[in-house]
Amino acid sequence: MSTFTHLDAEGNPNMVDVGTKKVSRRTARARSIVVLGDEIMDQLEGQELHTKKGPVFQTAVLAGIMASKKTGELIPLCHPLGLDNCEVHIQVNEQREVVIDCTARITAKTGVEMEALTGATVAALTVYDMCKAFSHDIVIKETKLMEKTGGKRDFKRPG
Amino acid sequence: MSTFTHLDAEGNPNMVDVGTKKVSRRTARARSIVVLGDEIMDQLEGQELHTKKGPVFQTAVLAGIMASKKTGELIPLCHPLGLDNCEVHIQVNEQREVVIDCTARITAKTGVEMEALTGATVAALTVYDMCKAFSHDIVIKETKLMEKTGGKRDFKRPG
Amino acid sequence: MSTFTHLDAEGNPNMVDVGTKKVSRRTARARSIVVLGDEIMDQLEGQELHTKKGPVFQTAVLAGIMASKKTGELIPLCHPLGLDNCEVHIQVNEQREVVIDCTARITAKTGVEMEALTGATVAALTVYDMCKAFSHDIVIKETKLMEKTGGKRDFKRPG
Amino acid sequence: MSTFTHLDAEGNPNMVDVGTKKVSRRTARARSIVVLGDEIMDQLEGQELHTKKGPVFQTAVLAGIMASKKTGELIPLCHPLGLDNCEVHIQVNEQREVVIDCTARITAKTGVEMEALTGATVAALTVYDMCKAFSHDIVIKETKLMEKTGGKRDFKRPG
Amino acid sequence: MSTFTHLDAEGNPNMVDVGTKKVSRRTARARSIVVLGDEIMDQLEGQELHTKKGPVFQTAVLAGIMASKKTGELIPLCHPLGLDNCEVHIQVNEQREVVIDCTARITAKTGVEMEALTGATVAALTVYDMCKAFSHDIVIKETKLMEKTGGKRDFKRPG
Amino acid sequence: MSTFTHLDAEGNPNMVDVGTKKVSRRTARARSIVVLGDEIMDQLEGQELHTKKGPVFQTAVLAGIMASKKTGELIPLCHPLGLDNCEVHIQVNEQREVVIDCTARITAKTGVEMEALTGATVAALTVYDMCKAFSHDIVIKETKLMEKTGGKRDFKRPG
Repeated sequence: MSTFTHLDAEGNPNMVDVGTKKVSRRTARARSIVVLGDEIMDQLEGQELHTKKGPVFQTAVLAGIMASKKTGELIPLCHPLGLDNCEVHIQVNEQREVVIDCTARITAKTGVEMEALTGATVAALTVYDMCKAFSHDIVIKETKLMEKTGGKRDFKRPG
Repeated sequence: MSTFTHLDAEGNPNMVDVGTKKVSRRTARARSIVVLGDEIMDQLEGQELHTKKGPVFQTAVLAGIMASKKTGELIPLCHPLGLDNCEVHIQVNEQREVVIDCTARITAKTGVEMEALTGATVAALTVYDMCKAFSHDIVIKETKLMEKTGGKRDFKRPG
Repeated sequence: MSTFTHLDAEGNPNMVDVGTKKVSRRTARARSIVVLGDEIMDQLEGQELHTKKGPVFQTAVLAGIMASKKTGELIPLCHPLGLDNCEVHIQVNEQREVVIDCTARITAKTGVEMEALTGATVAALTVYDMCKAFSHDIVIKETKLMEKTGGKRDFKRPG
Repeated sequence: MSTFTHLDAEGNPNMVDVGTKKVSRRTARARSIVVLGDEIMDQLEGQELHTKKGPVFQTAVLAGIMASKKTGELIPLCHPLGLDNCEVHIQVNEQREVVIDCTARITAKTGVEMEALTGATVAALTVYDMCKAFSHDIVIKETKLMEKTGGKRDFKRPG
Repeated sequence: MSTFTHLDAEGNPNMVDVGTKKVSRRTARARSIVVLGDEIMDQLEGQELHTKKGPVFQTAVLAGIMASKKTGELIPLCHPLGLDNCEVHIQVNEQREVVIDCTARITAKTGVEMEALTGATVAALTVYDMCKAFSHDIVIKETKLMEKTGGKRDFKRPG
Repeated sequence: MSTFTHLDAEGNPNMVDVGTKKVSRRTARARSIVVLGDEIMDQLEGQELHTKKGPVFQTAVLAGIMASKKTGELIPLCHPLGLDNCEVHIQVNEQREVVIDCTARITAKTGVEMEALTGATVAALTVYDMCKAFSHDIVIKETKLMEKTGGKRDFKRPG
């Protein structure tokens, strides 16, 4: 019988009190997929091959990690949290889409799925920013949680 | 003959110099679509009907506007900019998807599409955060630029 | 035999070392009262009646919660802290004054009265900002701590 | 025939579009008054006499100036603005109250009264923070706009 | 007959009023030099040769650019400014020292030397952070302004 | 057999996972030395003698403490951390150099040397900013770690 945990009895937005929850190691991994289109991918892959781990993706990795640390500042009702770590990995899949995975980990009373989602999303926006001079027809195709452990119930997206 | 404007001759990331560009009124509108699923939409619509413009969407509107002002802090190579204004509008479409439009406007030497995209995206993450106690199967289905005026070339997404 | 805890032996400002203090659950509630005047209250109540929990107060609630999370960034010698939760409640009293209560809670080595005060204050400034087009004669009449538990000595304001 | 400028036709919160307003030099001065009580004032004046312009007030001056620069980040619907300057002055009046004046100036399309109010308020909270080890019965007695020039209509508080 | 521009007649810190200064294109370039020692340089050059412009330096470049945008937030009496652009370049000199140059540009009423210095310094701290697992005997050997144009008087460091 | 802890197996930048490290009390002290030159030192010492604990150094102390709290925001791969305390002390040595010591302390899974270094560095930049109207020939001569306790291995700089 779930309810909107961020809304109190009068329908006002408020943070959830995590004071009595127990500390555990928690992880979450989120994914954003960016579709740049063939023209940009051609340019990008040329660039990347030259530098092995080229600057577009590395800039996005760092932007994602730094944004993940700012989650509590961006999402109004998120708790301000530390992080045990945060990792962003980017690869190109067979459909030539840019697949960004952000994994956040913490030992705390509350989970880090918003941290993972924020990291993946800002990494995706950074890829967009660095490629937008080529075309405005870039789409951040999809952002979602892939897995989550250490909270009340674990989650793993099928497939 | 476009190139990666954020990369210099040696492939290093760097901001673009806008010093000689001319000041003009610029606008951009971006859209994020969040799919919450029927279970959450049932709850949300009950809630919203009660309050006309209920707290989930209003929280997301404010989060989007505030994030839009932080774009230059989040996206590594974006210029730090003021804004003439920023508006976020949220509606539910016929497929029961949450459609978030963020419009940013500025009178400046450089455009605000990243501001619009950042606002739409953080509003979408906020909707996610406020509904995630119900389900982890929420998807930010798509984020993209809808239109843009005042820069080198205008853009309007067809359809 | 109190002294200025933020000043060291030479009169220099410095943070207090909380390294040896013990972790406990701490709460604090602060209150700000905003006097908008009858003209604005007439408008505001019309507006609020329409939407049950209208946008002016909800915007202020969110601004207060978000500012509370930034206390360590705003007040130079405050410790950077997480929060178990933060709640802002706003009501209109019999004198038609806007009464803003901010409650902050934490499980930590140091208290959260500045977090509660910062949250109440920024909520009050936000009410001001959203009503200032009507009149400049708005006054934030008073801001003070109402109660505090979990530290060296509890406090509860009489009345 | 004023309306809530931050609410659009549907009652949603939104920033005001200042794109067509004209640039002018604008100033605003706001005041916060902090009542510390005789016990703290005795300590503080002893301290201050020793250092001429002692550390409590100087810390508050700097906190106020720095907070003034963050106004657009704290108040959800304020525009992100630069500042021509910001000054905070603190004195003790005949009733032994701490009187904090914050003056902000800008050459822009929109005014800086929220910047002045935010600066005065955070300076007041900083005085509170540095004195709270003595007593919890400190009150920020009043915060208000004192004068304002350069906008649609000038304002000067009588008295 | 210079004086401390940040101190007013009573010796209080305050921002300088730039309201009447004229807008001009201004640039500044600052340099930080980091001495990592031979052991780390051996490792780093191995790493860098593999990736051409390896991740340590690229992370530092981005950290410097992002910090440069935060100068007004870090340095208490600096004006909040936009930037036309910011570039960070890193090279290794003949003494195997890491030489970091940060160039900031703006069209504004006040200069950007603090932006250039902040960018160079935070880039240097980032190189330090990424290498400190090897040794604590890393030294940021020197940070200084190299040149400056567009203000009251140009400056160019000899040699 | 050290390696670059911030780079993963593929050479990508990433935060170190501190989830399994044990909590201990950790301290670090860093030092920055600023050379202002005789002309400025004459002015500064006159000023400081007048006010006992003059405003230039106090502003720098506060800027250093506040920046230390922002370390995780500035240095891309640093963990977001609280702090038990942070102290900045400034003195003038026999060569008339300004010597800034920043000590940070925490009870956590990871150390605070970057917090100490960031605090010392931003204090140094603030001294620079407040004196730069006199001369551009100011040099931040050197920044380094002085000592460190509570981690895997203690460190104390000889001499």
